[in-house]
Amino acid sequence: MQHSFRLTIQCPDQIGLVAQVSQFLAQYGATILEANHHTDLTTQRFFMRHEIQADSMTLDMATFTAAFMPIAEKFKMDWHISDPASLPKVALLASHETHCLADLLHRWHTGELACEIPCIIANHQAIADIAAWYKVPFYFVNFKSQPKADAFAQIEAILSELSVDTVVLARFMQILPEDMCHNWAGKAINIHHSFLPSFAGAKPYQQAYDRGVKLIGATCHYVTSDLDEGPIIEQQVMRISHSDSATDMVRKGRDCEKTALANGLRFHLEDRVIIDANKTIVFA
Amino acid sequence: MQHSFRLTIQCPDQIGLVAQVSQFLAQYGATILEANHHTDLTTQRFFMRHEIQADSMTLDMATFTAAFMPIAEKFKMDWHISDPASLPKVALLASHETHCLADLLHRWHTGELACEIPCIIANHQAIADIAAWYKVPFYFVNFKSQPKADAFAQIEAILSELSVDTVVLARFMQILPEDMCHNWAGKAINIHHSFLPSFAGAKPYQQAYDRGVKLIGATCHYVTSDLDEGPIIEQQVMRISHSDSATDMVRKGRDCEKTALANGLRFHLEDRVIIDANKTIVFA
Amino acid sequence: MQHSFRLTIQCPDQIGLVAQVSQFLAQYGATILEANHHTDLTTQRFFMRHEIQADSMTLDMATFTAAFMPIAEKFKMDWHISDPASLPKVALLASHETHCLADLLHRWHTGELACEIPCIIANHQAIADIAAWYKVPFYFVNFKSQPKADAFAQIEAILSELSVDTVVLARFMQILPEDMCHNWAGKAINIHHSFLPSFAGAKPYQQAYDRGVKLIGATCHYVTSDLDEGPIIEQQVMRISHSDSATDMVRKGRDCEKTALANGLRFHLEDRVIIDANKTIVFA
Amino acid sequence: MQHSFRLTIQCPDQIGLVAQVSQFLAQYGATILEANHHTDLTTQRFFMRHEIQADSMTLDMATFTAAFMPIAEKFKMDWHISDPASLPKVALLASHETHCLADLLHRWHTGELACEIPCIIANHQAIADIAAWYKVPFYFVNFKSQPKADAFAQIEAILSELSVDTVVLARFMQILPEDMCHNWAGKAINIHHSFLPSFAGAKPYQQAYDRGVKLIGATCHYVTSDLDEGPIIEQQVMRISHSDSATDMVRKGRDCEKTALANGLRFHLEDRVIIDANKTIVFA
Repeated sequence: MQHSFRLTIQCPDQIGLVAQVSQFLAQYGATILEANHHTDLTTQRFFMRHEIQADSMTLDMATFTAAFMPIAEKFKMDWHISDPASLPKVALLASHETHCLADLLHRWHTGELACEIPCIIANHQAIADIAAWYKVPFYFVNFKSQPKADAFAQIEAILSELSVDTVVLARFMQILPEDMCHNWAGKAINIHHSFLPSFAGAKPYQQAYDRGVKLIGATCHYVTSDLDEGPIIEQQVMRISHSDSATDMVRKGRDCEKTALANGLRFHLEDRVIIDANKTIVFA
Repeated sequence: MQHSFRLTIQCPDQIGLVAQVSQFLAQYGATILEANHHTDLTTQRFFMRHEIQADSMTLDMATFTAAFMPIAEKFKMDWHISDPASLPKVALLASHETHCLADLLHRWHTGELACEIPCIIANHQAIADIAAWYKVPFYFVNFKSQPKADAFAQIEAILSELSVDTVVLARFMQILPEDMCHNWAGKAINIHHSFLPSFAGAKPYQQAYDRGVKLIGATCHYVTSDLDEGPIIEQQVMRISHSDSATDMVRKGRDCEKTALANGLRFHLEDRVIIDANKTIVFA
Repeated sequence: MQHSFRLTIQCPDQIGLVAQVSQFLAQYGATILEANHHTDLTTQRFFMRHEIQADSMTLDMATFTAAFMPIAEKFKMDWHISDPASLPKVALLASHETHCLADLLHRWHTGELACEIPCIIANHQAIADIAAWYKVPFYFVNFKSQPKADAFAQIEAILSELSVDTVVLARFMQILPEDMCHNWAGKAINIHHSFLPSFAGAKPYQQAYDRGVKLIGATCHYVTSDLDEGPIIEQQVMRISHSDSATDMVRKGRDCEKTALANGLRFHLEDRVIIDANKTIVFA
Repeated sequence: MQHSFRLTIQCPDQIGLVAQVSQFLAQYGATILEANHHTDLTTQRFFMRHEIQADSMTLDMATFTAAFMPIAEKFKMDWHISDPASLPKVALLASHETHCLADLLHRWHTGELACEIPCIIANHQAIADIAAWYKVPFYFVNFKSQPKADAFAQIEAILSELSVDTVVLARFMQILPEDMCHNWAGKAINIHHSFLPSFAGAKPYQQAYDRGVKLIGATCHYVTSDLDEGPIIEQQVMRISHSDSATDMVRKGRDCEKTALANGLRFHLEDRVIIDANKTIVFA
């Protein structure tokens, strides 16, 4: 169980907006643990996140929603309040590279990631082992014996069956089909093993090696149907040199990948990310 | 001239605080360019900064102050509003090492630092040259021909004469006397050439070399009478290796020093720093 | 099995030294994969590491040693050659905090760390589980039911029984007794959860929080009988802000700890570290 | 005057290579201050740099060259030895953005960059001022009143007249014509204000803002006729957030640009960079 509500809002900027929201929260006794505001001065759009101590509010979720609706409508808000009584359900999709998967599972196991993990889905049977150890149900989906469309249909069925909220591609290495990208817009998180927009697509470390860059990186972003073009949540980089082979970069880069994905996912789960067109506001 | 007011507030945390401040600002038409909040959950203290478009307010400074007073008193606020009609006056104190001085002057010259620089004070005549080039009045204070107390009295006289607001020790290498530390509490900024609290005191790069650390750094902090113990505003670090001599560290570390001091001073000038006992809140 | 010899040398600097070593290696057909030199100009000491393709040499280890002896003696070398036919044996000592342990085990499992792990030793039974999953023998040593000296004697017995080469304190949280520090000089690696020499001793994140630093870090170093004063192998830092509580620092700092320890251990296992008094040369 | 020779070598890798070079150097009494080797295992190419105490050698440059020739030919070396009796001549080309220019001049003035600066060339008259202060001859080249080809011909004439060795484009903002790129291959250094290959071409900070990246950077590289595609010497990055406007990125990015260019130029001047096709070996 979480101990806080998170109220996130985006809307056109307007004088009096913060006053009215603050007034509303004060009226119901909200103890604010954290508050963040951002105004995009080019688009005149306003973004706001409040983290509110759950037991300080004299309202339940349904009453809150009903009571807040007039303000939300007045200011044309796109808004969301998280329910402290339930944890988001996160599905982890993985392949044979396990460093991101193992890292996320350990963080989850030790309480760093506030979510349930109802399933691990992989196209490699070897992943069953690590899933078993963490007592997470494992689903093998065969990408070799059937058309990709069927494999993804199988995945969609699992996600739907388990009421999954967020999909994490933890080095899954399969490109989601366009309709799935749309279904999971803003709810599917990928880790790409380069500093995007550099080296999108396949074999980014080899690309980095061939170009002779002096830093490598990793990018955690929302999945869209444009490959590696979705809104970026978090990026990490690391210095390398001429003495690093492409294989060394693969090894070193894993640390960037793990950290970027873990940070990005945590921000998402804590409602710290607001998507604005193809960019993100991250109240880290 | 600046184009924004900056309102900074600290006070005990209380429900309704943000609502009332926001309501006040909205009432006078304030367009908020940037807003930052912080609650220290251990001390239950609240910190807030608003950057307000200057010409959006229907109030002048004096009226604002009078009107805001009841709210400030009600919530026991320690507060400050910057006057957009005047730039803070910054005195730069330097010695023979000129990298920080030259860096600050170039940033100031190209509009990166919103302040006036009414004087450069140094204990080396050679600094006159660079001051002349930037057309800043230069004051030589002799630390060899007179007791230190007299030299500092001379400096205090200059600062007073020129109505200086902020003193920057840009590698000044002289320890301010205790009374001067008190006079300039929260208004004197130093750059120490180590990652504090490591290597306080003299010759920090030699200390770092002797200890065999793998990263060096620099710390920008407010001056207090406890040497190198004041509230930290900003720190920078840089990787080094066994192949770096103490001299190499001196050279490399300069880049940390320049950046840490320039960032720290900019945060201070833009009222982004609130001092809370021996720590800082930096709304960067 | 490893595929390379590693020859490491330290000695007083002298003209002709490199020529003679290189000549020796060439004479026996050594294909050099990597070569690193360092001269400490203050002490006139010379350090050298060669990584040699194992099957390129026409000599076995014993013959190599015999043949190289005259050169080593002539130049007063402190030298070492690794045996490509055997992997170093690493004991992991852990306590209830498992992030470093889990991270090292995953890296080892996926081939990133070239060693055997003959045992995990812990003062918490809960660690048995993770050891079992990685199929590593687990030893529980009770630090509560017996005097510390007896507990450490038990550990020494296990290490001796298993012919352990390197001891890793993966957040073990117990201070090694002085005699054990001496026995394992240059062979026991610790991770301290601060940027040393800042915040040595207990509760470094709380110390960092109290001091109000803007960066936290972790230090991987060899254990000596002076607590947290041993030769530093690797350090990592991370930016924090006023909004991070001491608990946030604990969570964030784990990423520094994991990376610093994993890098430090890898450097050690690949014979990339040469200890010189209280400092290290790291041919990373 | 410099106090060291720098001998740089690249050639096909071969057993006995290092032995023979080391033997040669020892024979003439060379005290080696720094030695670096690199073998590119994919191309089997070998790279080596020696820094030799100038007065330790019993040979003058001409005799050295004659004596070394047989070894160079035997191993098919592409090699170079720097003359400690002369400093390289560096021309700085600048435009209206002065941060890189001012930074390089200050470093040079304080002895950080071992070179002569026989000229500053700019397409803005305002640069005359800063050149005068550093007592460096200034050349204004008008890019508005004449065809670009003529302006560049004028620049080439100045460079030739002054026997310039290295050209630095310190935010010069004019694209060198193809023939000039060829004439100055490996001797013209540019700073691009992005983390290449991301955001090549015009307005990289605006591109970065539009893409919503979480880190910005700068790249120091050799100029080739493919714009922003030359061998990379050095890169720097810096974290940004949604609260940074494109203008903030321009300001912040300057620190990356200054550091990347200063490091890259220093590496070049100290013969630490060896170009290998479109990549660099940097013995930093």
